[in-house]
Amino acid sequence: MSRTVYVNGEYLPEEEAKVSVFDRGFLFADGVYEVTSVLGGKLIDFGGHAKRLARSLSELEMDAPVTEEELLEIHRQLVSRNDIDDGLIYLQITRGAADRDFHYPADTAPTIVLFTQSKPGLADNPAAKAGIKVISVEDQRWGRRDIKTVQLLYPSMCKMAAKKAGADDAWLVEEGKVTEGTSNNAYIVKDGKIITRELSHDILHGITRAAVLRFAQEAQMVVEERAFTIDEAKDADEAFVTSASAFVMPVVEIDGAVLGDGKPGAVATRLREIYLDESRKTAI
Amino acid sequence: MSRTVYVNGEYLPEEEAKVSVFDRGFLFADGVYEVTSVLGGKLIDFGGHAKRLARSLSELEMDAPVTEEELLEIHRQLVSRNDIDDGLIYLQITRGAADRDFHYPADTAPTIVLFTQSKPGLADNPAAKAGIKVISVEDQRWGRRDIKTVQLLYPSMCKMAAKKAGADDAWLVEEGKVTEGTSNNAYIVKDGKIITRELSHDILHGITRAAVLRFAQEAQMVVEERAFTIDEAKDADEAFVTSASAFVMPVVEIDGAVLGDGKPGAVATRLREIYLDESRKTAI
Repeated sequence: MSRTVYVNGEYLPEEEAKVSVFDRGFLFADGVYEVTSVLGGKLIDFGGHAKRLARSLSELEMDAPVTEEELLEIHRQLVSRNDIDDGLIYLQITRGAADRDFHYPADTAPTIVLFTQSKPGLADNPAAKAGIKVISVEDQRWGRRDIKTVQLLYPSMCKMAAKKAGADDAWLVEEGKVTEGTSNNAYIVKDGKIITRELSHDILHGITRAAVLRFAQEAQMVVEERAFTIDEAKDADEAFVTSASAFVMPVVEIDGAVLGDGKPGAVATRLREIYLDESRKTAI
Repeated sequence: MSRTVYVNGEYLPEEEAKVSVFDRGFLFADGVYEVTSVLGGKLIDFGGHAKRLARSLSELEMDAPVTEEELLEIHRQLVSRNDIDDGLIYLQITRGAADRDFHYPADTAPTIVLFTQSKPGLADNPAAKAGIKVISVEDQRWGRRDIKTVQLLYPSMCKMAAKKAGADDAWLVEEGKVTEGTSNNAYIVKDGKIITRELSHDILHGITRAAVLRFAQEAQMVVEERAFTIDEAKDADEAFVTSASAFVMPVVEIDGAVLGDGKPGAVATRLREIYLDESRKTAI
């Protein structure tokens, strides 16, 4: 069955959803993106994603081709047209198409593309019950990971390295400290304390991260925002990652070291429940 | 006038030259490229570019969609169909189109795109007679600059920063040493000695760099391959950059410091002459 994809104002069958080879997203990775989860046909934290999108565009001096209200309407149209109950909506905006030149073109309309991915039972992912295994790899990404750009080749390479090593994902390490996962923020729990790297240009400012830390504090959990090493992580009581599509995902093994009893920890499990409950309540 | 563009086996008017929004070049910057110069209708160092392309593909575990012979034929067809006397041929290969997933897809045909840019008088660029001004900026690119990927947002941002500062280009500095220019290799000349950073994962292995160093050595010039600082560069007798499209381009100002008498130096000027002469002789 062909999906309906949104491209620059048009709803098209996916086979016809194309961009110019001169699009700067294709030639220069000159574009930003967001992924919003859909649960029960409703959008999770749409406002958070819209806000971060605006910041990414602003950091790259790009104009938003649509208002937040229009963006919401496109998301809803795609949910409806593709009959999405649980799944993801991917959104990408690039600086548009122009003859190839490193300099930004003067008067080019941005390109905007959105498509859906149906993921029935997204919130009941069996991986959340088993926990995932991660390996550590050197963080070789560019320096502005706070801007959510489509320069995703290195995370992609690391996901493949993890797969080849028999693991589910990779944690990135820079100057001895974990920055984050390939497509998620990373956390450890030690003596009841949740530890995760503080916000900076070094990591993505996760929308799910912000929500989970807020819920953790509301539940009287102690949160410490600081960088940690892989050795510290291997010695932790539990660990987890957060992202818009994985929510809160327990990590049970790091570089072959089994955490605790090798099962998802109590803190991660509880935070996942709270996050899903609260997010469903405020979904739009 | 519409150019003829090559996309996956077809020669198309540029307006129809499109790729799927699911192309991994667009979604993940999962692609590599080459730019080959054309002078007098002939290709400069095609073999060098084809060899580097094969290495980039291999490093990313991508298959070449065409043989070197076929690639040469496509280049020649585009030169002919677009009536290119002097100009550039841009080539990009991506891992192809597949539903979005960080993991490489199992059985996806690569995407191959080539287009031309006509640049009459490319070898007589007036900038080569005046010399260019560069500023230094922090090198925030990813760690594998030896693979010629389309992750070009940061170089693009740096070209814009240079433009805003009234300069022509930027040199990138990491841990106190110059890595290279935004889209070229960087050199200084001091006491007759040509100094340029040694090859590693930190810089692109320039095809023009290799040729220019060979010609320099053949002309009995002394070449020292090592990293240098911006302070050392500002104190140099002359400086220049090399790239497939700029050939050898003299640099006359670095971060506001004028080199020598502010005119292109003798070494850069001589190397440009030699490079253009020799390249024309072996052009195919």
